[in-house]
Amino acid sequence: MSPEIDQYLVRNMPYYRTVADEVDLYEAAYSVRMPMMLKGPTGCGKTRFIEYMAWKLGKPLITVACNEDMTASDLVGRFLLDASGTRWQDGPLAIAARFGAICYLDEVVEARQDTTVVIHPLTDARRVLPLEKKGELVQAHPDFQIVISYNPGYQSLMKDLKQSTKQRFGALDFNYPAHDIETEIVAHETGVSVEIAGKLVSIAERARNLKGHGLDEGISTRMLIYAGSLITKGVEPLAACHMTLVRPITDDPDMRDALDAAVSTFF
Amino acid sequence: MSPEIDQYLVRNMPYYRTVADEVDLYEAAYSVRMPMMLKGPTGCGKTRFIEYMAWKLGKPLITVACNEDMTASDLVGRFLLDASGTRWQDGPLAIAARFGAICYLDEVVEARQDTTVVIHPLTDARRVLPLEKKGELVQAHPDFQIVISYNPGYQSLMKDLKQSTKQRFGALDFNYPAHDIETEIVAHETGVSVEIAGKLVSIAERARNLKGHGLDEGISTRMLIYAGSLITKGVEPLAACHMTLVRPITDDPDMRDALDAAVSTFF
Amino acid sequence: MSPEIDQYLVRNMPYYRTVADEVDLYEAAYSVRMPMMLKGPTGCGKTRFIEYMAWKLGKPLITVACNEDMTASDLVGRFLLDASGTRWQDGPLAIAARFGAICYLDEVVEARQDTTVVIHPLTDARRVLPLEKKGELVQAHPDFQIVISYNPGYQSLMKDLKQSTKQRFGALDFNYPAHDIETEIVAHETGVSVEIAGKLVSIAERARNLKGHGLDEGISTRMLIYAGSLITKGVEPLAACHMTLVRPITDDPDMRDALDAAVSTFF
Amino acid sequence: MSPEIDQYLVRNMPYYRTVADEVDLYEAAYSVRMPMMLKGPTGCGKTRFIEYMAWKLGKPLITVACNEDMTASDLVGRFLLDASGTRWQDGPLAIAARFGAICYLDEVVEARQDTTVVIHPLTDARRVLPLEKKGELVQAHPDFQIVISYNPGYQSLMKDLKQSTKQRFGALDFNYPAHDIETEIVAHETGVSVEIAGKLVSIAERARNLKGHGLDEGISTRMLIYAGSLITKGVEPLAACHMTLVRPITDDPDMRDALDAAVSTFF
Amino acid sequence: MSPEIDQYLVRNMPYYRTVADEVDLYEAAYSVRMPMMLKGPTGCGKTRFIEYMAWKLGKPLITVACNEDMTASDLVGRFLLDASGTRWQDGPLAIAARFGAICYLDEVVEARQDTTVVIHPLTDARRVLPLEKKGELVQAHPDFQIVISYNPGYQSLMKDLKQSTKQRFGALDFNYPAHDIETEIVAHETGVSVEIAGKLVSIAERARNLKGHGLDEGISTRMLIYAGSLITKGVEPLAACHMTLVRPITDDPDMRDALDAAVSTFF
Amino acid sequence: MSPEIDQYLVRNMPYYRTVADEVDLYEAAYSVRMPMMLKGPTGCGKTRFIEYMAWKLGKPLITVACNEDMTASDLVGRFLLDASGTRWQDGPLAIAARFGAICYLDEVVEARQDTTVVIHPLTDARRVLPLEKKGELVQAHPDFQIVISYNPGYQSLMKDLKQSTKQRFGALDFNYPAHDIETEIVAHETGVSVEIAGKLVSIAERARNLKGHGLDEGISTRMLIYAGSLITKGVEPLAACHMTLVRPITDDPDMRDALDAAVSTFF
Repeated sequence: MSPEIDQYLVRNMPYYRTVADEVDLYEAAYSVRMPMMLKGPTGCGKTRFIEYMAWKLGKPLITVACNEDMTASDLVGRFLLDASGTRWQDGPLAIAARFGAICYLDEVVEARQDTTVVIHPLTDARRVLPLEKKGELVQAHPDFQIVISYNPGYQSLMKDLKQSTKQRFGALDFNYPAHDIETEIVAHETGVSVEIAGKLVSIAERARNLKGHGLDEGISTRMLIYAGSLITKGVEPLAACHMTLVRPITDDPDMRDALDAAVSTFF
Repeated sequence: MSPEIDQYLVRNMPYYRTVADEVDLYEAAYSVRMPMMLKGPTGCGKTRFIEYMAWKLGKPLITVACNEDMTASDLVGRFLLDASGTRWQDGPLAIAARFGAICYLDEVVEARQDTTVVIHPLTDARRVLPLEKKGELVQAHPDFQIVISYNPGYQSLMKDLKQSTKQRFGALDFNYPAHDIETEIVAHETGVSVEIAGKLVSIAERARNLKGHGLDEGISTRMLIYAGSLITKGVEPLAACHMTLVRPITDDPDMRDALDAAVSTFF
Repeated sequence: MSPEIDQYLVRNMPYYRTVADEVDLYEAAYSVRMPMMLKGPTGCGKTRFIEYMAWKLGKPLITVACNEDMTASDLVGRFLLDASGTRWQDGPLAIAARFGAICYLDEVVEARQDTTVVIHPLTDARRVLPLEKKGELVQAHPDFQIVISYNPGYQSLMKDLKQSTKQRFGALDFNYPAHDIETEIVAHETGVSVEIAGKLVSIAERARNLKGHGLDEGISTRMLIYAGSLITKGVEPLAACHMTLVRPITDDPDMRDALDAAVSTFF
Repeated sequence: MSPEIDQYLVRNMPYYRTVADEVDLYEAAYSVRMPMMLKGPTGCGKTRFIEYMAWKLGKPLITVACNEDMTASDLVGRFLLDASGTRWQDGPLAIAARFGAICYLDEVVEARQDTTVVIHPLTDARRVLPLEKKGELVQAHPDFQIVISYNPGYQSLMKDLKQSTKQRFGALDFNYPAHDIETEIVAHETGVSVEIAGKLVSIAERARNLKGHGLDEGISTRMLIYAGSLITKGVEPLAACHMTLVRPITDDPDMRDALDAAVSTFF
Repeated sequence: MSPEIDQYLVRNMPYYRTVADEVDLYEAAYSVRMPMMLKGPTGCGKTRFIEYMAWKLGKPLITVACNEDMTASDLVGRFLLDASGTRWQDGPLAIAARFGAICYLDEVVEARQDTTVVIHPLTDARRVLPLEKKGELVQAHPDFQIVISYNPGYQSLMKDLKQSTKQRFGALDFNYPAHDIETEIVAHETGVSVEIAGKLVSIAERARNLKGHGLDEGISTRMLIYAGSLITKGVEPLAACHMTLVRPITDDPDMRDALDAAVSTFF
Repeated sequence: MSPEIDQYLVRNMPYYRTVADEVDLYEAAYSVRMPMMLKGPTGCGKTRFIEYMAWKLGKPLITVACNEDMTASDLVGRFLLDASGTRWQDGPLAIAARFGAICYLDEVVEARQDTTVVIHPLTDARRVLPLEKKGELVQAHPDFQIVISYNPGYQSLMKDLKQSTKQRFGALDFNYPAHDIETEIVAHETGVSVEIAGKLVSIAERARNLKGHGLDEGISTRMLIYAGSLITKGVEPLAACHMTLVRPITDDPDMRDALDAAVSTFF
């Protein structure tokens, strides 16, 4: 494997706690190289899942955090000036297609609808990527697969995937794990006791009921891990929760009271 | 044939199931090099048809996925820096015009109305492409033809072709194939039995009735092929249908129920 | 004549059927080098007319398809990088002014109002073109004339020529030709019989009455020539008319029925 | 005088018919190098006046047609790539300030309000032009003066000069000349008889009453000169008037009738 | 002192008529290098004041006329191409910080709110300017001070300084001088008699009462100096006032009548 | 330590008056390298706090003043032209990640939501920064931490952090210090007596009650230090307060009266 792609191999098994049949379904999808869409709220484990799958399948993983300013060139590549004129620099999508990586476009809705169009020829039977500026037609490597993440709660009138893009993907739904599984995850990742981890999860579950009633998103598993890490470092649970579960996500006094009350119930 | 254009030849016969007289009409249009517009919904086979025709006519095919950021230069070409100064790089439209390829502008409505204007001189009696930045007037090769795709369901106030562009094209309508033909296609492309393929087509037919009642587009033939491929790999038909026909296209609980019901009727 | 301008000479007499006194009026305007504006709907023959006049006057013709992204530099010229630094590249307007061509700005309303301002110094008594980036003041060649096309049906609140631009041009009105003349044109250009050509013109005349009642533009002479060409190639008149006169311009079922009825009346 | 500025000298006396005390007032303003604003409708002679004054004062005249895309660099200058790196290229404003020309910014409202700000340091006691990109402070040549044109009928909410810009200029009002003077001008410039010239002026006077009642601007002196030139070339007065006074400025049938009636009254 | 900064020294004492304690307060502010904001209407003497203070303190003065297109790079600097690659070019703010000049940002509200943010690190205790593109952290020279001007009458919803910017400045208010002082200024600057100067000031005082009643700004001291200069050159006071006090600032007939009346009262 | 990063070390202990447990909580957060968000109004000491913590932890501090024009390249780096072609220049975020600095993004809401996305991979378990244009994946140095500041009073519909960004940070709340602490700070920083410092703080406390009633923000500690510095330099307290506490933040006459009254109460 060339060094260019080698750096994208996931070397250590990422910790991932299987929830249902998502690992098997993904493997079937990968076996036919079906483009995949991972759907679910912020911080529920989509990125961790794809890292785990890349490790399990032994394929390099190239992750691209999508944003509104991303141009087609940022994905596909561009000419750079060199001592001897111009030199073509493959973008992350071209590298993935050429060398057979899994290309993971994170928060793809952030990209402009029309930038997303450049992935179309990689998602149908042709599996090609035209580098129009270079005049080259890259035939995707047999191992290449494209995966995107998508947060349904984010869809707005302005930003949604085009129907003609959505139709090109199979999809897996993700959500926050069940109480016991999430407790296990928090304990494993932070070193707090199962009892404390369970309390943190209970706080999160209360807060998630506030979603749509003043909170845009619930408290994620990632935030619980932040709280747990501080507790392990000796910070008072109350202070740790305020610092990681309450203050970051709201400045509304009533909402802060509601979240504080949830915290105080358990600590 | 130069290697520059040679890579665009379609070497193997693409699988295309003729529906009506579309192949004959297209051949007549090509014989007078009439610019053509392929109209129809996402994933119904327009791209496959033009690949088949390019193969049948033995002409190279250059496909451009149009998008809002595409500039005239992306179609026509630009100067690149070189060791010895600047070098002109033909864009895909210029390559097609110069060497006599079929140039297929996919989802042309995505491009800015005014970018589309650069194709006008290639669509009237002159058949020329002015490379204004280079100061060259390319006379189109006798084999050159321009083809665009157009999804009528997509037209919006913001994005539609200008009347003066539309008038420059002959048009063919495409739609999802009739039940038996679509069944034959799904079975052929995925290896599932005709019985299973027929069930998948029936699910799609139900879902297509929901178009405009909460679904922007129906389930396409391409999506049925995704479902079939997973079934061939041993995935449960129910899980395969959820993953490929339901989850990708809607997050609305009611719509998901409606689609799930359609799936459950047949599996 | 330098080769740079030589390629813009119209070598063969374009077929143009005189309708009224437009050829004489244009010759008078050219004799005083009055800037001219050709007004009329899409596809009625404005471009053909100016090609014919350029041929008749024996002057080179440089056509620029205007679009919203066209900058002043696209008309006037720019510096290009070269082995020995930068090299000035005249734009089409500068070439025309320098070497004495007729410069035809097609669909000039598409250009941004303010880009059009660069033609002002060429349209008053000074007849100069300042190449500000190069620090040169080009005095127009005695043969130079500027001509623009303008589709009155297109004017919108957003896009119209500024009054101070309009006032700098003399204007000629164009419209679809009278029945017999248009029949003659269609027969001449496609090889169909006068009878068939007459039927095609009659269909167009009916459709033109629908303009403003659901159709943005009527059926143009160019579209009739498309229909005629297919009929000459052996396509059924009905199929040829659907493909070239109906499908390209509307997807509205009622409008399609109305146009189909017009076609069926004659074939 | 350096050749760079020499090309901007007005060599032949431009024809200008003095209307009131505008020549004397301008000379007084120039004697204190007061920045001047020429106000008046399109085509009434502002540009001709400034050319005449430049000739009379024996100063070079650099005219810049302002537009919305004009950046500060277009006025001030920029670095260009050269065989030996970059080379500074003065813009028209910098050339005028450095060598002592009159710099005439035509239709200055078209420029973005904030681009206009670059002229401020040249209009107060300092009379300097900072070339910020070059790190140079150009002290204006004693002969330098800045002049702008301004069409009051054009002001809109979006486009007007900032008050802090207006206050930096003295102003002269211009309008269409009185009947006899305008007749004299048209006859002089086109060679038609005084009688015909008078008729053309009378038509214009009627049309100018329609301004604000369906016409954005009246018929300008420049348009009358167009009409006269065609008549001199043997075109029928009626045809000449339609081509130059009616068709260019309106497509509204009622307005065309009104203008045609005015024409028919006199020819 | 390096020649780069030397050109910004104010060599001759600018004429400035002290109004109150503004000179002392400014000197105190400069002694602690407090960033200063000069507030007041157009043309009342803010620029003259800062030039006078720079001369009095013997510090170089770098003035930047702010505008909406000004980028952070225009203030801070950029890389330029050179024979031997790229060369860093300090912007005016970086020159001022490096060599210890007073940097005067004129009409700072015109700049985009967020461009202004680059001055923040120079206005707090750190007094640094990060040249992020160059990877250098410029520690401001002990003599460096930043001064901005601000016209309170200009504030709009779209354009105002951010509160977090305003808080970083001490502020001095400026206004048109009292009658006798303004008379003295006009007489001194133009050479007209004190009587005539007093009449001009009286006209201005009347016009300033119209501010907000149809006039955006009153008549400034600068405009009175324009009028006086023309009168010194022999222009009739009435004509001089029309040309410099009335026509430049309004085209509204009623407002012109009101201003003309004010002029006629005194001349 | 390389010189590139060495310049970012805070060499002298910044004066910071601890208010509560913020120093301990921050140290715990740093010990797990948790990304931190400092929340609070303008000028209350957030920047000073992070400088103090960087000094206390002995880590370099790279501060970036965020603004709307900041692109991902401004944070991450870009290619520069060099004598021998292009050379990669790390941006401040890449330098911080590579060499182990604390990277402080000041007023992060000013940056476009989507530019902020580039920090995501540095805030989850991966702690990587993809330099996509260079094709390099930077693994963050063990000492690296990311800190952002956030003014809750600034949130608007247009500008707020995305929920998926907020969730990646622990948060500390900041506010103006209690009366005695603020008095101590003002006296320490300016050299005025505790009595005068206390009066200044009392004025600020009155003004802060006006926040939301005509004042966008209250008077900050920074502004009190400005006032104190002028008083130390011998400026009358009344004049010093007007110049630093009143004029900079409001032009509304009523509000100025209210603030003046507050000042007069104490001086």
